[in-house]
Amino acid sequence: MTLHPSIYADLIRRALDEDLAEAGDLTSEACIPAESVSRADVVARAPGVIAGGEVASQVFLAVDPALAVETRLEDGAEVAAATVVMVVEGSSRSILTAERTALNLMGRMSGVATATRRLVAAIEGTGAVVADTRKTMPGLRALDKYSVRMGGGVNHRFGLHDAVMIKDNHIVAAGGLRPAVEAARRHVGHMVKIEVEVTSLDQLEELLEIGADVVLLDNMDPATLRQAVAMVGGRMVCEASGGVTAETVRAVAESGVDVISAGSITHSAPQLDIALDFRN
Amino acid sequence: MTLHPSIYADLIRRALDEDLAEAGDLTSEACIPAESVSRADVVARAPGVIAGGEVASQVFLAVDPALAVETRLEDGAEVAAATVVMVVEGSSRSILTAERTALNLMGRMSGVATATRRLVAAIEGTGAVVADTRKTMPGLRALDKYSVRMGGGVNHRFGLHDAVMIKDNHIVAAGGLRPAVEAARRHVGHMVKIEVEVTSLDQLEELLEIGADVVLLDNMDPATLRQAVAMVGGRMVCEASGGVTAETVRAVAESGVDVISAGSITHSAPQLDIALDFRN
Amino acid sequence: MTLHPSIYADLIRRALDEDLAEAGDLTSEACIPAESVSRADVVARAPGVIAGGEVASQVFLAVDPALAVETRLEDGAEVAAATVVMVVEGSSRSILTAERTALNLMGRMSGVATATRRLVAAIEGTGAVVADTRKTMPGLRALDKYSVRMGGGVNHRFGLHDAVMIKDNHIVAAGGLRPAVEAARRHVGHMVKIEVEVTSLDQLEELLEIGADVVLLDNMDPATLRQAVAMVGGRMVCEASGGVTAETVRAVAESGVDVISAGSITHSAPQLDIALDFRN
Amino acid sequence: MTLHPSIYADLIRRALDEDLAEAGDLTSEACIPAESVSRADVVARAPGVIAGGEVASQVFLAVDPALAVETRLEDGAEVAAATVVMVVEGSSRSILTAERTALNLMGRMSGVATATRRLVAAIEGTGAVVADTRKTMPGLRALDKYSVRMGGGVNHRFGLHDAVMIKDNHIVAAGGLRPAVEAARRHVGHMVKIEVEVTSLDQLEELLEIGADVVLLDNMDPATLRQAVAMVGGRMVCEASGGVTAETVRAVAESGVDVISAGSITHSAPQLDIALDFRN
Amino acid sequence: MTLHPSIYADLIRRALDEDLAEAGDLTSEACIPAESVSRADVVARAPGVIAGGEVASQVFLAVDPALAVETRLEDGAEVAAATVVMVVEGSSRSILTAERTALNLMGRMSGVATATRRLVAAIEGTGAVVADTRKTMPGLRALDKYSVRMGGGVNHRFGLHDAVMIKDNHIVAAGGLRPAVEAARRHVGHMVKIEVEVTSLDQLEELLEIGADVVLLDNMDPATLRQAVAMVGGRMVCEASGGVTAETVRAVAESGVDVISAGSITHSAPQLDIALDFRN
Amino acid sequence: MTLHPSIYADLIRRALDEDLAEAGDLTSEACIPAESVSRADVVARAPGVIAGGEVASQVFLAVDPALAVETRLEDGAEVAAATVVMVVEGSSRSILTAERTALNLMGRMSGVATATRRLVAAIEGTGAVVADTRKTMPGLRALDKYSVRMGGGVNHRFGLHDAVMIKDNHIVAAGGLRPAVEAARRHVGHMVKIEVEVTSLDQLEELLEIGADVVLLDNMDPATLRQAVAMVGGRMVCEASGGVTAETVRAVAESGVDVISAGSITHSAPQLDIALDFRN
Repeated sequence: MTLHPSIYADLIRRALDEDLAEAGDLTSEACIPAESVSRADVVARAPGVIAGGEVASQVFLAVDPALAVETRLEDGAEVAAATVVMVVEGSSRSILTAERTALNLMGRMSGVATATRRLVAAIEGTGAVVADTRKTMPGLRALDKYSVRMGGGVNHRFGLHDAVMIKDNHIVAAGGLRPAVEAARRHVGHMVKIEVEVTSLDQLEELLEIGADVVLLDNMDPATLRQAVAMVGGRMVCEASGGVTAETVRAVAESGVDVISAGSITHSAPQLDIALDFRN
Repeated sequence: MTLHPSIYADLIRRALDEDLAEAGDLTSEACIPAESVSRADVVARAPGVIAGGEVASQVFLAVDPALAVETRLEDGAEVAAATVVMVVEGSSRSILTAERTALNLMGRMSGVATATRRLVAAIEGTGAVVADTRKTMPGLRALDKYSVRMGGGVNHRFGLHDAVMIKDNHIVAAGGLRPAVEAARRHVGHMVKIEVEVTSLDQLEELLEIGADVVLLDNMDPATLRQAVAMVGGRMVCEASGGVTAETVRAVAESGVDVISAGSITHSAPQLDIALDFRN
Repeated sequence: MTLHPSIYADLIRRALDEDLAEAGDLTSEACIPAESVSRADVVARAPGVIAGGEVASQVFLAVDPALAVETRLEDGAEVAAATVVMVVEGSSRSILTAERTALNLMGRMSGVATATRRLVAAIEGTGAVVADTRKTMPGLRALDKYSVRMGGGVNHRFGLHDAVMIKDNHIVAAGGLRPAVEAARRHVGHMVKIEVEVTSLDQLEELLEIGADVVLLDNMDPATLRQAVAMVGGRMVCEASGGVTAETVRAVAESGVDVISAGSITHSAPQLDIALDFRN
Repeated sequence: MTLHPSIYADLIRRALDEDLAEAGDLTSEACIPAESVSRADVVARAPGVIAGGEVASQVFLAVDPALAVETRLEDGAEVAAATVVMVVEGSSRSILTAERTALNLMGRMSGVATATRRLVAAIEGTGAVVADTRKTMPGLRALDKYSVRMGGGVNHRFGLHDAVMIKDNHIVAAGGLRPAVEAARRHVGHMVKIEVEVTSLDQLEELLEIGADVVLLDNMDPATLRQAVAMVGGRMVCEASGGVTAETVRAVAESGVDVISAGSITHSAPQLDIALDFRN
Repeated sequence: MTLHPSIYADLIRRALDEDLAEAGDLTSEACIPAESVSRADVVARAPGVIAGGEVASQVFLAVDPALAVETRLEDGAEVAAATVVMVVEGSSRSILTAERTALNLMGRMSGVATATRRLVAAIEGTGAVVADTRKTMPGLRALDKYSVRMGGGVNHRFGLHDAVMIKDNHIVAAGGLRPAVEAARRHVGHMVKIEVEVTSLDQLEELLEIGADVVLLDNMDPATLRQAVAMVGGRMVCEASGGVTAETVRAVAESGVDVISAGSITHSAPQLDIALDFRN
Repeated sequence: MTLHPSIYADLIRRALDEDLAEAGDLTSEACIPAESVSRADVVARAPGVIAGGEVASQVFLAVDPALAVETRLEDGAEVAAATVVMVVEGSSRSILTAERTALNLMGRMSGVATATRRLVAAIEGTGAVVADTRKTMPGLRALDKYSVRMGGGVNHRFGLHDAVMIKDNHIVAAGGLRPAVEAARRHVGHMVKIEVEVTSLDQLEELLEIGADVVLLDNMDPATLRQAVAMVGGRMVCEASGGVTAETVRAVAESGVDVISAGSITHSAPQLDIALDFRN
């Protein structure tokens, strides 16, 4: 899936506003002649997974529609250090004005994709997939979720609005697991999936009588997860979550769960180091 | 310095829109009776520096002005794991609807403050300060820069608009160091500082004849930095940058530079783990 | 489910802007003394189902936070003609300035709820529910979908973004039913439901081998629907659509389908006649 | 009169946002290859008056500037059922992503135009014209009023801001008809028309002594209207309003009034059924 | 007529954004303790007409809802130099942060009101009124037009959208005066006034045969104006325009015209000098 | 320095909205055939300095991207009366719809540039420069500050956010000059300049011991300024302010100050008279 430019056009404008405010790019306007043209490489300095090529392109074009941007690699591609991922040509001033905003976005997105790919690679060959959470950067959810896809992960729900996730607080407030699930079924339409979080096998037992589309097995060790998967027997999608790291993810996956969700791929992904080098 | 709420009000609205879209909080509206009230603790799960308390408060109030939010710790405070930093009381639904957005913001801000504090602590007793860069999260620059201050750092320029920073590309395009600096002096007013990046002591030599407010000593080892500081002799503020880590920062500081800028404290800070626990 | 005010606050502002523009309410400001106060009834002139009480309240408060608005009936209530549904008290000018915007919104919302209730009532006792479509008024989707719920219907997907609906064009472009469904399964996460439209029992046969969450039985007569429901045998949710009216809906429902979707309840619902009468 | 695209550009963006949110068009992005191209007809399924051709075009171009949109009929044209009104060619994905938003807008606008034309046709040959009211869809006033023009009607005031309309509440608050009209004359400039609503011939008598640009003869039967028109004798424009339908409008028009205003053409117009068919 | 706060709320937010950007009020946050409170007078330094008291109040409240603002004079009041027009009390920081934005708005508005009053005073006792034009400050039209009213003037049309003004270019393009006026009558509804600009008595002659609501007598000397007024004989409102100054306006008014429009009261009004003085 | 179009794109949209609202350009749409094309000159009617050529161009293009706009003079050029500064060619309707908004912006900007140039010319040959203040038109700060540059002036700080300016209220609240300056130094980074206002030579004496980047010598006569400049001896930039006029500015400049700031060039600049003439 791609990301329609209308989804992030406002974000680009706001990010440019942060850099330009009312006074613009003081340095480039003072030092760079208006007619100067350059050719610049966007280069990944470290190995990782590229995401945000189209977004960065749109930043350059938002600053100056006359810039020529050539994408060398599709989003989702793995790169070695020192790989040219994009070439920009045109007004030197425009390139410098757009540079930091373009790189901040692409660096973030590639960082998320790279963190995701690390987990995905670690569970290769198991039947599980890596999913994201709602622990995304405020204002960048669409980009974070897209970057997870580019890293090989799948998207969990996009927000509170598109799926039901019943957690302990909901269960307590509703007066129990059954009333909570039944309230959800009554209130949402037939196009909305219902997931329920359980923290013990006893609770899972209870849920199996009631039914749901997905069960979230929260903070269980691999052995317990294995038991849980066996109990479910394919009647619900099994999702594991809780403190998953690149070191522990394979053991979780080998328990037989279908989905492993990890907040860290969005809330704590370091950016991928990407820079812009003028050639001339 | 504080952060005026009008600066981040739109960000809060956008972050809530990401979660609520057109359909709202399906789960809470289905499972939680409208009249249910709760008391919840916002708890730091890991040690670190808190930032974003007021921002998180404003999220809760944006969702429901009737919520009572009590801040237990000022921004900038260091916390041990399992510290209650805020207490929220009121409609259970409203608390759950606001929870993720409030925590995503506070977790990000505290993560930046914590990463900054680590560097600040490492150079304690030297004369240097830690500064941020423009490598901030797009759309969150004001919050990132504020969080750096809460971590004990200082802010570098906020954007391209409020200070001049002459780098190699500007020098090449302007036809040399002197013409670049002179063009900047001619174009900007008397309230704008001019910083120039040099990559060698020869270039520094040349700059010392021309003058500037600040010199950026880029990617120099501590020994070279020490020489540079001696050459400058107090005539310009000396700023060091380039791949600074918690391990290397003290050696850089001991070279005698005034400022050490580090992109990692904003572009790659892991979030601080903060959660919301219902008490009842 | 309720509707969070932040979801429609911008719509209220835009609707008021249409009425006030730069010059404001010329007539009331000229003719009504600033200090004049009134008490006015919001009255349903025709029988129907009320929706939008809270939205109308917010319009009055957006114009003047000092107005006192008392809601007499909850959204979803059925009213006879000449029923007072709300009482507004305060500045006469403010009430008149807000009147048309408040009534336009409440009249639209109650119109949609009333049209929905008519279908819902017609199928009472069958196992089917009435669902809406994406044929909503541009800019008012959240309100239209909420009004459908108030009328007793359920919401279909909110947009292209929260569920998969594979129609004939998708099937052709993907090279067949199976490749289309498999592509969807590969691309979307485990929290997204997949619905497939079929136009014949042969196509349904094919779909049953592949599987999906929901099947849309498009434009089939009740007899064919009955056959389809039997073929599905509970393995998918059965949704019927196509030219459903108050006259035909019961026959459709008695075929045994689970869901009947109808565009007319949003795209062609006449407004409910609601007026504002000053008491003094 | 046409409708400048800047007037509705934001509405198009909001309507697309409702459909795409953060995740985009899940189905098309999963099932339709990026390179697939199609040719699709926009077809009126029912007879009526077309309006919104340019608006629908702008929707397609907002989704994808590379789409080729050919308008076959001007706004205001009457069509038989099954008439192709527009042809769109280009990326299959883009066409499907834009489809519903384009049709929702064009269906609404054509519905209003069709409802207007029905009244206009019913009074052909009389001297009266059909006018709209402020009972328009919130957020769509410009489009509703344009559609009325395309249906052959004329626009009443656009809002509270561009003309004075003195109703009973204003008269009461101002202390009588004369003080109300005089207050209006004192407060508004020479470019603003003043209309006064009267509900009886006695009141009309009083108004004739004071004068106004337009008199609104509210809820009078044709015989009373005829008397009123005679009393006015051309000194004011005579407007009739109140529960006008296609059945009653001719009798109203034959009373000799100049203008007949009808809320139903905007607040309760069913949409015109317009669909998009792929040709390949 | 007053000015509804929703009409200028966005302008206040934008003006504050210009001053605060992402970093806020550096000086006050550094130098003023958060708990410091003050009492400050808003003082007119020069004689003039006050306008914008409520707007300035809203600026203070937008910065800090806890400030207490007491308005000493109603908009439209004439003040001598050194008059206290408003008193603000509360957080010293908040007062200083809001000061410049509040004064810039009130100074502009009072400047326009003062310039208007000068012309109004000059024609006292004649039957003419002073009107504004569309030559207002971009983004401040509502405020400029309101200020004109506070100065004792009346508003001409608010934009291209609410009245017809036929000038020479329209006449040429339409093929003559008669076809232009007739096209306007055909296209606009019965609530829109039509004004026609004439530049000679011959053209006026021609217009008198066709008729219009208002005639704009462009750039005529008082003697010609007098002839024109006589020719019109009350059949149209007579408006004079063109280079009107405080020196020439009385002669124009004494020609018998009804309205004198002057661009200078908005496009070139110097601001009224208003300052904020701390009392403590 | 130029002005990036993204900085003022929203202002153009808002200004056009003021003129077009929901109904558009009634007159042109009624009187001007859609296919009519024209060629129009934008003419300076009075001598002055042109600014806003690119901004006016963008207005024409915002109304109609098919218009051809040819700029005859660069911003900053001095013109005699009756100089053609721009030629616009294309749809007559579009030109008339854009005319007023384009001229209002260009007239304002050229007015500011012209007022600035008058002061700049008056001090030619002295070492001083003319600077603006924050007394700009709300919502137009970027344009006002750019226009000052085009007039030959320099920009003071852009807002409260990009430089420190310590005035008497700050000094009082901080408990003296030294604590105020030290608080500022502690709170802001190394890229922010600090200016301190002094009102007497005694205060200047005190400041010289503490140090700052810039001193504002407030409301001093030329003799006192001369003494102040001598006392400072180049250790700080010297800025004079307070009631500067074209008559008094040279005496101020000859005192030896570096910068003279004047609010009048933005808060009270009359617009430059610029009109649009159709050639055909």
